[in-house]
Amino acid sequence: MSRENDAEPGPEANLDEIRGLMRALPGPDAAMAEKARTREAQLTKPAGALGRLEALAEWGAAWQARHPAKAERPRVAVFAANHGVALRGVSAYPADVTAQMVANFQHGGAAVNQLCLTHDAELRVYEMALDHPTNDFTVEPAMGEADVATALAYGMMAVEDGVDMLCLGEMGIGNSTSAAALACALFGGEASDWTGPGTGVSGDALAAKIQVVADGVALHQDQITDPFDALRRLGGLELAAITGAVLAARMGRVPVILDGYAASVAASVLYAIDETALDHCLIAHRSAEPGHSRLMQHIGKEPLLDLGMRLGEGSGAAVALGIVKSALACHAGMATFAQAAVSGPAGEG
Amino acid sequence: MSRENDAEPGPEANLDEIRGLMRALPGPDAAMAEKARTREAQLTKPAGALGRLEALAEWGAAWQARHPAKAERPRVAVFAANHGVALRGVSAYPADVTAQMVANFQHGGAAVNQLCLTHDAELRVYEMALDHPTNDFTVEPAMGEADVATALAYGMMAVEDGVDMLCLGEMGIGNSTSAAALACALFGGEASDWTGPGTGVSGDALAAKIQVVADGVALHQDQITDPFDALRRLGGLELAAITGAVLAARMGRVPVILDGYAASVAASVLYAIDETALDHCLIAHRSAEPGHSRLMQHIGKEPLLDLGMRLGEGSGAAVALGIVKSALACHAGMATFAQAAVSGPAGEG
Repeated sequence: MSRENDAEPGPEANLDEIRGLMRALPGPDAAMAEKARTREAQLTKPAGALGRLEALAEWGAAWQARHPAKAERPRVAVFAANHGVALRGVSAYPADVTAQMVANFQHGGAAVNQLCLTHDAELRVYEMALDHPTNDFTVEPAMGEADVATALAYGMMAVEDGVDMLCLGEMGIGNSTSAAALACALFGGEASDWTGPGTGVSGDALAAKIQVVADGVALHQDQITDPFDALRRLGGLELAAITGAVLAARMGRVPVILDGYAASVAASVLYAIDETALDHCLIAHRSAEPGHSRLMQHIGKEPLLDLGMRLGEGSGAAVALGIVKSALACHAGMATFAQAAVSGPAGEG
Repeated sequence: MSRENDAEPGPEANLDEIRGLMRALPGPDAAMAEKARTREAQLTKPAGALGRLEALAEWGAAWQARHPAKAERPRVAVFAANHGVALRGVSAYPADVTAQMVANFQHGGAAVNQLCLTHDAELRVYEMALDHPTNDFTVEPAMGEADVATALAYGMMAVEDGVDMLCLGEMGIGNSTSAAALACALFGGEASDWTGPGTGVSGDALAAKIQVVADGVALHQDQITDPFDALRRLGGLELAAITGAVLAARMGRVPVILDGYAASVAASVLYAIDETALDHCLIAHRSAEPGHSRLMQHIGKEPLLDLGMRLGEGSGAAVALGIVKSALACHAGMATFAQAAVSGPAGEG
């Protein structure tokens, strides 16, 4: 894997320019989707027998705008950042763990390293100013306009030429608290609807975490001007980077596999602006974090996997990549009934 | 992939000797399972955060009797055979398709070929006397004692030295009918509970298929002496081979990934004798064939995947192999908290 240095000043980032991109989202390539459906019907299997794998092959073609879709250069991008709200004791782990886990990623010792090796994906870890956590959102906005715009633009850089499938994950002690507050601001409901154990808090500590989320939402709710502003006030640098990466992937025709709760909430900032904005994204798995199921109901997504995972760091997305690769390989590589001289259904000639 | 020739006369097969193996099933290796649990607790992630992947690593160690478990030489074994009952019009496809699909496997054109390439598994296709279908079980027992014993022994040969994970699938026009009848005989209920569209029959054709299953069960029910006898009367050569492979894998300490409905029913012959007999087996996926969910309830298994697949030929098992490999890779390759100098939960030192 390779590691990006702390965010260099990227292209001049401007939040209004990024807002403007939302008015120019490319749609699916209908012709390529049609090519996929046509070929799928000719492959040596009963129609529909590969279930969701068939839909994935069509989805890939529609959003890569090529047929057959390929996942020859998949990237797992993990964005790491620190959160001021971590000082409120919302995590079972101290904030130092963010940097320690980034080092663990560098040395190949984390779950996501093993999963990238297993599924032949490139791993990129993006450290985002770990010594400069966001502000505590229960006191003030987590970020200023320039900070959130820079983080969005930084995330957009993960969509490099040649990458054909993008898995998005995060690492940041305190970020399930930030994600919960952001989801609550975007989709309504109570803080308790969106707040779960994260790395493993329970009892009084979970009650305190819920209160932190409620306090943050209450402080900002009336002043939020749009979903990007909600991201600025309640999100984090790594969450903003994921939002940016999802948007850049859409512009660059790179299908996306979102990891778990925090990554899905970050992506949902775009959904809250345009309900088609995540059509190029899959949800890798149903996180054990309870807010994730609620979020998926709101955004109308079914996960690929349901394995009780709740680690983050792109781990679920990397496992789901194996499913997507399976789907694309079947679609591209199978013989047709004619090629294989296999008889079709009786009575169909 | 390699292809086995039509069953050569194998080791002298005797059904009573095979029955005898059921009284000497090895159990899980408790010491290796304990080693897996101990290591799992030290890895750089919150306890339980990899969900079912953690359980898979323990399962692998317990049933391979080594720690860490490995899937370095996984084999996908696909058994193919023909069914006399296919002449009753129970499938959407003519019986010739069994041989045509075996040729498709040989030439690399089927779904399972692409999936084995994707997940780096060896594919073995075992042709079982395709020119000699079993008898029509609505008229007489599908097989004689010698035939079923030979088929069981043939399947056992799939467990060769060095294979460390065995995925089991089948190909056989008519075999979802045979599987339905066998499941009904083993676990009770109505023929309609166990009979589904298979390759895609519906309406009157499905009603006729249900009647065939009901007729077969009614003819044999009172004479069935034990689950192996049910297999002989209502099963098929490829189903018996899978039963044998599951049993040999248990004896040889090779964990098993069962594909879909037909493979799961074949394995369940052993469950009907001993409820612990499938503890070394995973169910790859929830087949869209409705009887599969019912069967899993009976045998107390939860599938790894739920993707609406219903192809057979080992396809679901090969996809699930990617999950198992993910699990074993995480467990074996991750750093411990001590190795990575990552802090544990706050207050735990």
